[in-house]
Amino acid sequence: MKQAISFITLGVADLARSRAFYKALGWQESSASQEGIAFFQAGSVAFALFQREALAEDANVAPEGSGFNAFTLAHNVPSEAAVVALLDEAVAAGGKLVRPADKVFWGGFRGYFADPDGFLWEACHNPFVELDAEGFIRLP
Amino acid sequence: MKQAISFITLGVADLARSRAFYKALGWQESSASQEGIAFFQAGSVAFALFQREALAEDANVAPEGSGFNAFTLAHNVPSEAAVVALLDEAVAAGGKLVRPADKVFWGGFRGYFADPDGFLWEACHNPFVELDAEGFIRLP
Repeated sequence: MKQAISFITLGVADLARSRAFYKALGWQESSASQEGIAFFQAGSVAFALFQREALAEDANVAPEGSGFNAFTLAHNVPSEAAVVALLDEAVAAGGKLVRPADKVFWGGFRGYFADPDGFLWEACHNPFVELDAEGFIRLP
Repeated sequence: MKQAISFITLGVADLARSRAFYKALGWQESSASQEGIAFFQAGSVAFALFQREALAEDANVAPEGSGFNAFTLAHNVPSEAAVVALLDEAVAAGGKLVRPADKVFWGGFRGYFADPDGFLWEACHNPFVELDAEGFIRLP
């Protein structure tokens, strides 16, 4: 298996609401999007929004689930001020502040917001890694 | 917010078990990994494995949760045969076959496997998109 992730797909309760949220954050859909699925290119990975029940059906699992879904997405930014600004932007777009920004034991600075379904995004400044012009990190 | 995802972090029950699974699939950890967290560069995104309770604590949410966690990862491959081969490889590595490969209404061919925590991976061939040399797609 190549060390690659092609798609990250979130199963959402209300596709129109989720589209509006990511659009409010400035994200632009790919022309590959269709009425029932939204695609956003994010570097080498495609980020997709799909109805939760339809995603469960596609994966052949039961759609029920609750509580912590045991994963987070992170968006790294080049400064502590940019962390605060991103959290503010997410709240203005209709997200929920889940953890206000603060310092972490390992030397970073981060907070968390949730999208309309509660999917968790970390807004993070890691002073030990560089970000490229597009905002992506390259680990050693 | 830039259209970027820096990290995808899975909150796992047994970090050693998860490390062994992804290693068995041929993935190599970054030297940025530490005892308590595993990092894998996967194109422009960093894939991380972290203890579930620690991830919940970092995000300031309760760690309890069950059932469908409402997201999937996908790994696209260049042929239908490669979908079957990837599912076989994942099962040999200790994954669980969740959906045997079959044709999808939109013209693709896919199956799903679950990692040791039940995180869902779609093995997919999409005849309508090209993969680059590293195995990444670029949407229109």
